[in-house]
Amino acid sequence: MPDITAVRTALADQRVETPSWGYGNSGTRFKVFAQPGVPRTPREKLEDAAKVHEFTGVTPRVALHIPWDKVDDYAALAAHAKDLGLELGAVNANVFQDDSYKLGSVCHPDAAVRRKALAHLMECVDIMDATGSRDLKLWFADGTNYPGQDDITARQDRLAEALHAVYERLGEDQRMLLEYKFFEPAFYTTDVPDWGTAYAHCLKLGAKAQVVVDTGHHAPGTNIEFIVAVLLREGKLGGFDFNSRFYADDDLMVGAADPFQLFRILHEVIKNGGLAPAAGVAFMLDQCHNIEAKIPAIIRSVMNVQEATAKALLIDDEALAAAQAEGDVLASNAVLMDAYNTDVRPLLAQVREEKGLDPDPIAAYRASGWQERIVAERVGGEQAGWGA
Amino acid sequence: MPDITAVRTALADQRVETPSWGYGNSGTRFKVFAQPGVPRTPREKLEDAAKVHEFTGVTPRVALHIPWDKVDDYAALAAHAKDLGLELGAVNANVFQDDSYKLGSVCHPDAAVRRKALAHLMECVDIMDATGSRDLKLWFADGTNYPGQDDITARQDRLAEALHAVYERLGEDQRMLLEYKFFEPAFYTTDVPDWGTAYAHCLKLGAKAQVVVDTGHHAPGTNIEFIVAVLLREGKLGGFDFNSRFYADDDLMVGAADPFQLFRILHEVIKNGGLAPAAGVAFMLDQCHNIEAKIPAIIRSVMNVQEATAKALLIDDEALAAAQAEGDVLASNAVLMDAYNTDVRPLLAQVREEKGLDPDPIAAYRASGWQERIVAERVGGEQAGWGA
Amino acid sequence: MPDITAVRTALADQRVETPSWGYGNSGTRFKVFAQPGVPRTPREKLEDAAKVHEFTGVTPRVALHIPWDKVDDYAALAAHAKDLGLELGAVNANVFQDDSYKLGSVCHPDAAVRRKALAHLMECVDIMDATGSRDLKLWFADGTNYPGQDDITARQDRLAEALHAVYERLGEDQRMLLEYKFFEPAFYTTDVPDWGTAYAHCLKLGAKAQVVVDTGHHAPGTNIEFIVAVLLREGKLGGFDFNSRFYADDDLMVGAADPFQLFRILHEVIKNGGLAPAAGVAFMLDQCHNIEAKIPAIIRSVMNVQEATAKALLIDDEALAAAQAEGDVLASNAVLMDAYNTDVRPLLAQVREEKGLDPDPIAAYRASGWQERIVAERVGGEQAGWGA
Amino acid sequence: MPDITAVRTALADQRVETPSWGYGNSGTRFKVFAQPGVPRTPREKLEDAAKVHEFTGVTPRVALHIPWDKVDDYAALAAHAKDLGLELGAVNANVFQDDSYKLGSVCHPDAAVRRKALAHLMECVDIMDATGSRDLKLWFADGTNYPGQDDITARQDRLAEALHAVYERLGEDQRMLLEYKFFEPAFYTTDVPDWGTAYAHCLKLGAKAQVVVDTGHHAPGTNIEFIVAVLLREGKLGGFDFNSRFYADDDLMVGAADPFQLFRILHEVIKNGGLAPAAGVAFMLDQCHNIEAKIPAIIRSVMNVQEATAKALLIDDEALAAAQAEGDVLASNAVLMDAYNTDVRPLLAQVREEKGLDPDPIAAYRASGWQERIVAERVGGEQAGWGA
Repeated sequence: MPDITAVRTALADQRVETPSWGYGNSGTRFKVFAQPGVPRTPREKLEDAAKVHEFTGVTPRVALHIPWDKVDDYAALAAHAKDLGLELGAVNANVFQDDSYKLGSVCHPDAAVRRKALAHLMECVDIMDATGSRDLKLWFADGTNYPGQDDITARQDRLAEALHAVYERLGEDQRMLLEYKFFEPAFYTTDVPDWGTAYAHCLKLGAKAQVVVDTGHHAPGTNIEFIVAVLLREGKLGGFDFNSRFYADDDLMVGAADPFQLFRILHEVIKNGGLAPAAGVAFMLDQCHNIEAKIPAIIRSVMNVQEATAKALLIDDEALAAAQAEGDVLASNAVLMDAYNTDVRPLLAQVREEKGLDPDPIAAYRASGWQERIVAERVGGEQAGWGA
Repeated sequence: MPDITAVRTALADQRVETPSWGYGNSGTRFKVFAQPGVPRTPREKLEDAAKVHEFTGVTPRVALHIPWDKVDDYAALAAHAKDLGLELGAVNANVFQDDSYKLGSVCHPDAAVRRKALAHLMECVDIMDATGSRDLKLWFADGTNYPGQDDITARQDRLAEALHAVYERLGEDQRMLLEYKFFEPAFYTTDVPDWGTAYAHCLKLGAKAQVVVDTGHHAPGTNIEFIVAVLLREGKLGGFDFNSRFYADDDLMVGAADPFQLFRILHEVIKNGGLAPAAGVAFMLDQCHNIEAKIPAIIRSVMNVQEATAKALLIDDEALAAAQAEGDVLASNAVLMDAYNTDVRPLLAQVREEKGLDPDPIAAYRASGWQERIVAERVGGEQAGWGA
Repeated sequence: MPDITAVRTALADQRVETPSWGYGNSGTRFKVFAQPGVPRTPREKLEDAAKVHEFTGVTPRVALHIPWDKVDDYAALAAHAKDLGLELGAVNANVFQDDSYKLGSVCHPDAAVRRKALAHLMECVDIMDATGSRDLKLWFADGTNYPGQDDITARQDRLAEALHAVYERLGEDQRMLLEYKFFEPAFYTTDVPDWGTAYAHCLKLGAKAQVVVDTGHHAPGTNIEFIVAVLLREGKLGGFDFNSRFYADDDLMVGAADPFQLFRILHEVIKNGGLAPAAGVAFMLDQCHNIEAKIPAIIRSVMNVQEATAKALLIDDEALAAAQAEGDVLASNAVLMDAYNTDVRPLLAQVREEKGLDPDPIAAYRASGWQERIVAERVGGEQAGWGA
Repeated sequence: MPDITAVRTALADQRVETPSWGYGNSGTRFKVFAQPGVPRTPREKLEDAAKVHEFTGVTPRVALHIPWDKVDDYAALAAHAKDLGLELGAVNANVFQDDSYKLGSVCHPDAAVRRKALAHLMECVDIMDATGSRDLKLWFADGTNYPGQDDITARQDRLAEALHAVYERLGEDQRMLLEYKFFEPAFYTTDVPDWGTAYAHCLKLGAKAQVVVDTGHHAPGTNIEFIVAVLLREGKLGGFDFNSRFYADDDLMVGAADPFQLFRILHEVIKNGGLAPAAGVAFMLDQCHNIEAKIPAIIRSVMNVQEATAKALLIDDEALAAAQAEGDVLASNAVLMDAYNTDVRPLLAQVREEKGLDPDPIAAYRASGWQERIVAERVGGEQAGWGA
């Protein structure tokens, strides 16, 4: 049976990184519905993130998205974060929202566009130097919409060239996290469509290049926990972009669509040594709260990750290994389900109280008056959002 | 063997309706890439549509999207269309881009929002009265993103109520085309997610309510031609929104992703009597030319429909029926493939020449100078696009 | 808050029908792995089913599959069931395992094959008369593998004709449950591929024709609970074939692949009045225990249905309706999740104890010695299985 | 423009390997429909394969499946092949049909089972030594059906160990082709589920380990030609198992479900140097002719590969590259579609005539009387099939 003290410690030590853009407006191609109180600046995003950390106690790091979080003075931004009890996390490059990227960025047929994209990636590493961020997160919207539109392997060559240049630029303690995505916004080929492609590139680059798994970026039916297990076995899992989906890259709150899947993913993480901070696996959220209130949605998402982690920590490893060794299909499945069926909310409430936190972060946030305050104060200006 | 004269006549008589919004800018949630020369007004959209008709000879009708094509004087717009050799086609209602529609339109939990949405639908019928349009096309973005968010059957009741009210308002020669969609922008439930739901509502409404099949609105692997055949058998196929997709609702040029599927769909249309104009099946395009030039993309799409139709018309029905009756799997498949493998471009070139058209519409358009002219002239103002 | 006494009563009253073929061998096209102790006769299947009922207390009915359960004297079989504390449930017709059904059964191009298939369906109703079964379950493997192989609408006509004939033959208290399936064993068209097709046929037939939802028979991503809700709203949900799947029609234990989905389905059942026995919704299992021990797998499946039902019964309907009416996305989702996250195993243990049952049916079965006994006794003869 | 002589030569030189098991009976889990005239022995399978080669002229090699094609004297079998104008191709190992493989073969938790499976793989290399076969094709049905059933990474370790042992055993000119498959017969995890996993293993093994792409073994929507291009770029594409599918691993005739996809795959093969025999890419069929006549189905499949190849060879590479370099989406797509829309049947008829073959292989086969002869002669004995 799992040692409950160790479980509590692991839960207390787990960290979830929240994304600056999760606090801003987002939507679908059909409509972005603005919400009152949404931040207008990177500093305001950090202030919202600080509230999430205040009530959950496990989200000290905030990921940036460049140029959405572009500021003149990143050291000042980092200092502001520090004042709020936060630190700046992964820097996410954006090479998909400039008009010149219509046919791609680092894979574009035109060398001039590729140079522009590469310059942006390099700028992101400069920002990392200034913010002290460890991770450069690279997601490329690159791809094609029509058969014949461009040459698949030529685009791979261009991609490899850009990745290599960025890799060379990384500092000693910096990493490159390469994200793959099944489709969208490209509709025929995507230049990094699956973990295999990301893995092959990272392998050639070296130890500082790692694969990041966005839980919404797979073909229907893909067994994500298998990929997680294999990447951990290969020493190539750099982190997660957590969210959930019923269909495509829906970017719903993590754990909302399939909580059992999240549990299975965390089980593989834990079993293969990925939970310990030393493993270097970054647990990040990447979600779009299109219709729900953003701050409580992020708090709920963090809690969902915690609940899945708690259940996975409660698995009786010895019993599981014994049943597996005997080939007892029902017994081994039952060991897993016993943990999954446990109500871990009391345990997590306890862990929070031990940290001096309210056992119910959502209620505590609602009672804090923060939402009313930002709605009242953040009037005028331009709300942050995708592309802003 | 098919009578080649009848084939030619059928091809010459087929009509494809182009969408006003296809001439404007579109994109994904990540970026809308603007294109030079894109229309700024409904009148300019019609002018582009007139070019498509000039070179294809089969696209006299243009569908409107309200409020994107809102004008003060619809009779004047219809007259402008007539001057251009066009007429106004289906009126597409839009109840998804107003801030009040965040949780739905006619299915919204709040009666005030439902009333507003219904008023818009009624306004669309008013516009049909003014434009002489036959068809009201209804696509609802309504749905929910999270389990529990709203009550599925209560939303069906609200939907039924709104549809009933609109149905009652329709004129004698007007129809309501109800579109279904698997998902997007809603990510958990969609209120009209499949043909079964659309069919069930239309059946209760009456003969003027018909189902419209958007070829991009199905679950992966769905056999669309089966649905087409069944709807024709039930007398409930109102029309198509043609486009193509590799993944979700990619809205690529029809026939670009799976030309064999388009051929099979047209085969069912023809076999079940849906090609004749009297059948009332509207062949409409509904596409997003995010990265390709819009007017030639629409011309290409029209040609793709024509080529699939030509191949389907060339199927040797007698040989097919004979092989099917004998249960000869390979022979019946071979009859179909013989038609599909035929190069019908010479036949269609001939049909065009008989109409006094250039046999190569794309080349003719490129030679016409229209593209250069609109790029030069349409400077300033706001380009039309989704939401504009 | 739900009335816990009512919850307990509902759980005590729920019935799950087990399938005779679930006790026999099954497999994939690659291999059927035989298991020791598997029944060799319909009577032995009933004896195993009696054990499931003995330990769960909620599975008095056993579905038959004809000809797999063909016997000379159905009245004697029913009497044997009665002696075991059971009764015979739905009769499942099988028109897919005879050599003549290679190209279909009731949809076959050859009228002689259709007549043979119809005769089998009629025989099944005869059996129902003898067994006192209420439901005739119809699943047709009919379809085609290649485009052009047969005529889609002609096959629909043939299907309609056969269904009509069977419907006319039904007794006053008998029903016809029409099952749909996305694909397999047919790989191009399936003659009843979706709920819409099944619904359209049932609607024309009349009140005694109802749709049955097999939870493994949908396209990837399909929202099954939506279909359940819509069918209940239409008065056309006849029952379930419960199982679970990660990919296609995997026929795993219900609740094993996505327990949250099962909970959502049960929520719609309960909310729309489908749980009460008077609603006539048959809760049946249809699973293949290819690699796991069969009897405990069926017990586990029954428990999974009970746990999902218990959680769905615990939803605070008033709080849910209030949050939905306010359009509070997070609050309404939270009401649902609160129930889902509850550990209902103690509650179900209590319900069992109130019935005089062991609170842990799996442990009780293992302790009973039944498995050892059947392994020892059922030696020789031919084990029951698909096709046997 | 492509050099038509070179095109003709390439078509004349292309080879397609046919599978011995394609001549035998096959089916789904629901039913195997036997066909008259089906071979009863490996020698009879070769005789059928010789007919396919006689009429197509491009199928001299026949793949074996062990133990389905187990004989006492492989040298004699090879000699028989030679007499028929054939040679023996890839040896396919089968570690999924023995009762001991219920929970896996080389990944099984029990070391004794793993040893047994490994011994079979070694035996297959022995057979290759005797037959002169170059390729050992490895497809593992290994996987699990339920979460928790076994340890994902432990299974990877066991897999790696077995592959390593086999790799060491390979002769200098022998290769190991590792096949991946999305799912089936395992329904939760599959131990080699995607190209990434196969690639990672092959990379560690060395140059003689290559990935084989079965066109039916992917998640819905997967872009197969992308994988083909990437594997060729990495020097890791060992060959194809060609077939087609609408849903899962339907194993229909290649090109039957999506001929445009087959064309796109061949385009990547050709563009990336995979067509030349020296590239070592094995073009194999792996199909199940469940309901259609087997020999003509295989002939048709070979012709489908040839037609897709011919179209891909006709692509105007220079025009394509020019349009791609300019970023002209429509023009580059049009270059591809021009080739695809060409009717290449006359060209292939010519190529056949130049080889002294009948231009219509299907008609020639039907006229040959072979089918009637085998139906008459192959009476009694046990027909070959999966598992026989």
